[in-house]
Amino acid sequence: MTTAELVLARCSELDAISASETWLERTHLTPEHRVANALAGNWMREAGLQVHQDAAGNICGRREGSTPGLPALLLGSHLDTVPDAGSFDGMLGVLMAIAVAERLRDTPLPFALEVIGFSDEEGSRFGKALLGSQAVAGTWDEDWWDLRDRDGITLHQAFLEFGLDPRRVGEAARRPEDLVGYLEAHIEQGPYLEAADASLGYVTTIAGARRFRLSVTGEARHAGGTPYERRRDALVGASEMIVAVERLAKAAGTIATVGRIEVQPGAVNVIPGRADLSLDLRAATDDERDRSWQEIERELLRICEERDLRLDAVETHNAPAAPCARWLTEAIIEGIHVFADDEPMGLWSRAGHDAMAVAAVTDIAMLFVRCHDGISHHPDEAVREVDVENGIDAFEHAVLAVASAHLARLG
Amino acid sequence: MTTAELVLARCSELDAISASETWLERTHLTPEHRVANALAGNWMREAGLQVHQDAAGNICGRREGSTPGLPALLLGSHLDTVPDAGSFDGMLGVLMAIAVAERLRDTPLPFALEVIGFSDEEGSRFGKALLGSQAVAGTWDEDWWDLRDRDGITLHQAFLEFGLDPRRVGEAARRPEDLVGYLEAHIEQGPYLEAADASLGYVTTIAGARRFRLSVTGEARHAGGTPYERRRDALVGASEMIVAVERLAKAAGTIATVGRIEVQPGAVNVIPGRADLSLDLRAATDDERDRSWQEIERELLRICEERDLRLDAVETHNAPAAPCARWLTEAIIEGIHVFADDEPMGLWSRAGHDAMAVAAVTDIAMLFVRCHDGISHHPDEAVREVDVENGIDAFEHAVLAVASAHLARLG
Repeated sequence: MTTAELVLARCSELDAISASETWLERTHLTPEHRVANALAGNWMREAGLQVHQDAAGNICGRREGSTPGLPALLLGSHLDTVPDAGSFDGMLGVLMAIAVAERLRDTPLPFALEVIGFSDEEGSRFGKALLGSQAVAGTWDEDWWDLRDRDGITLHQAFLEFGLDPRRVGEAARRPEDLVGYLEAHIEQGPYLEAADASLGYVTTIAGARRFRLSVTGEARHAGGTPYERRRDALVGASEMIVAVERLAKAAGTIATVGRIEVQPGAVNVIPGRADLSLDLRAATDDERDRSWQEIERELLRICEERDLRLDAVETHNAPAAPCARWLTEAIIEGIHVFADDEPMGLWSRAGHDAMAVAAVTDIAMLFVRCHDGISHHPDEAVREVDVENGIDAFEHAVLAVASAHLARLG
Repeated sequence: MTTAELVLARCSELDAISASETWLERTHLTPEHRVANALAGNWMREAGLQVHQDAAGNICGRREGSTPGLPALLLGSHLDTVPDAGSFDGMLGVLMAIAVAERLRDTPLPFALEVIGFSDEEGSRFGKALLGSQAVAGTWDEDWWDLRDRDGITLHQAFLEFGLDPRRVGEAARRPEDLVGYLEAHIEQGPYLEAADASLGYVTTIAGARRFRLSVTGEARHAGGTPYERRRDALVGASEMIVAVERLAKAAGTIATVGRIEVQPGAVNVIPGRADLSLDLRAATDDERDRSWQEIERELLRICEERDLRLDAVETHNAPAAPCARWLTEAIIEGIHVFADDEPMGLWSRAGHDAMAVAAVTDIAMLFVRCHDGISHHPDEAVREVDVENGIDAFEHAVLAVASAHLARLG
C-alpha cells in the first residue's frame, strides 16, 4: 500500500463517523468528534507521536526534536465538517501530516514536530468558525461561551458535556516562543490548479472574511386577508437583499454567500414576520472586503426603508487576511519542486483555514492539493491519488526544508 | 356577564392550550388538540348539546329539532391555529356558535342544530389545509395518509396516536340529505369592515386558493472557493423567484405568499444546493387564480434556465372558489339587520375557511366580524366586544331566519 493509498483509506474511515446516516456531518464537541479524535489519536500513536487531547478538544501528537523541549513545527488541519460534506476538506491535511510524521519518525529534526487535528474550523455548530485553532492561537474570546447551537445548547454546556473544563481552555494556547511555524496541507476548494493542470500549489495569502447574522423584521399577518399595501413581508425583503448581495459582490470582485435562511412563523398561509440569514463575505484584501460590506449594508438598509422593515446586523466573525510567511512558503515551494520542474503556482485562498487563526501566534504557510472541478463542501469532493502522493512527498520535503532554514535562521 | 364577555373569556381559556410557552400554537392531532376538544365539548354540553368527537377528530355537539332525526343546520369553525397565532381566527366562530345554541336551547327549530369545532383548517402541521372539514364533506383523499409533519410523522401515524382509526375516517362524512346548510362566523382577517366603519359583514364568495411546494435544486459548494461563474446557488435563485412572485401577483390582482423557506445544507460557508418553499395563491375567481399561476410558473422556469437550476413544483392544495348560497346569505343579512339599519357590506373572503370544504356537501354562508387593522395570524389579532355581541345577535337571528326560509322551502 502506498502512503497515498493509506491516507485515502483513512479518509474513508473518517467518512463513517457522521451524525447523519445519509450524509457526512461531524461537528464540534459531538459524539462524532470524540470518535474522530480517538481514531486520529491512534494513527498518531502508530506514527510514533505522543498523543493528547488539548483543553479545546483538539487532538495533538508530538515527537521531540534532537533535544527534548525544543520549539515545535506544527502541521495540521481540521477534523470537523460542514453538513453533507465531502471527505477531504480538513481531514486530508491532518492525515497527510500524520503520514509525514510517520515517514520522518527516525529523522533527527532541529525542532519538535507536532500534528494537530483541529476540533472546529467550519463553525457549523455554533456559527463561529475556527474555535479549535483560535484556542491554540490564544485568541479565545470569553463571549463565545454563550454561543448556542440549533438546539439552544451553549458552547459552555457543550464543553462540559464533552468532558472539557471551560475554565481551562487557556491551557490550549501556545506561546510564540514554543513554536517554529505552522504548515497546513489542504485541498484547493477552487478550480484554479485543475485549470492550470497542476497537481499542487502554494498559498500566498488567505482571504479576509467577515460573517454577519442578519435579522429582517417585518410583521406576520394572514396570507389571504392582508392586501399588498399593508404587508411588511420579511421574506420578500430578505429575498431582495440576497439578490442584491450577489449583484454588489460580483461588481466589487468580492465573494459573498448567504448560506442560511430561516423564517418565522414559517407557515404556508402566514406572511413571514421575520427572516434570519447568514452572510459570508471574502476578498483578497481587508480593504476590498470592508468596502464591499459598506456597499452591501447601504443597499440592505435602502430595501428596509422601502419596505418598512428593520435590519439588525451582528458581526459573528472577522478574520483579517492572513499572508503566508515568505520563509515557510519557500520551503513549500522547494517541496513541490521535488517532483515538478515548472514554477509552482501561487494562489490566494478564497476559503478560510485554521492557518489564518494560527497566524496570530506563529508564521504560517500552506500547500494546496488539486481537487476535482473545484467542488468542496459537497459529497462529490474528490482528489486524485497521484496528487495526494505528490502532496505527501512535497509536504515531507517542505518539513526538511524548514529544518534547514530554521538552522540557518538560528545562525 | 354578557354573552360576548363569556365568549371572549372562553377565547382566553383556549389561548392557554398551546404547544409553545411563548406563543399560541395548536395543531392537528396534538395533545393540545385533545385538550381543546375536551374543553369545547364541555361548553357544548353546558349549552344542552349531545357531544361526540367524530372519526376525523372534529368535536361535534347536536340538539334535535322539533322531531328527532331531522336534517341539521351546521354552525362551525375551527379550533386549530397557525404557529404564533392570534386568539380569534377559528375559535371565535366555534364559541359564537356554542353561544347561539345556548340561547336557542329551548326554541323549537324545524331542523337539528349542530355545532362543529373543526380539527384542522390551517394545515399548519401536515401542509394540507381543511383536513377536518374535508372529512365532514366526504372529500377525503386516501393519498393524504402519507403526508408528513416536520418530524416525519405521517398523518396515518398521527391518527393512530390520537386514538382515531384511519380506516373509519369515512364515518365523519355527512350525507347531503342529512344537512340543511352550514353557517360560519369568523373574523374578517382583512381591513375592509374597519375601513367602512362596519361591525359585521357577509361573505359573497370564498377565494379560490392553490398551494404549491416548490423545490429549487442547484449545487452545494464551498462558499469561498467557488467563483460566481461556477455557482448554481439555489437560494439566490429562490430569492429572485420570491421577488418575482410578488411583482407578478400584484400586477395580476391576485394574492401570492411564500410563507416557508428551507435551504440545504444550511451552513454559513456553503452555497445552498437546494431551497424548498411554499407558495399560497388566491384570487376572487378560479380563472384569475389559474392565469396568475401560469404567469408565475413561466417566470420561475425562466429564472431556473438562466441560473442552471431545476424547479419541481408539487401542488399540495387546490380549492375552487366557493360562492355562498343566496338563501343562507339572505338569512345572515337579516341577522345583521337586527341591529344595523344600513345595508350590510358584502365581501369576498381572501382567506380560506372550513365553509369552502363544507360547500362540497351542503349550502354555505358566512358572517364576518370586524377585526383590528386587518391583523390575523399574529398575536395582535383583536376584536371589539361590541362587535362580538352584535355578531352573536346577528348569528342567532340568522339561524331563526334560516328556520323560516327552510320551512318556506319545504312548502
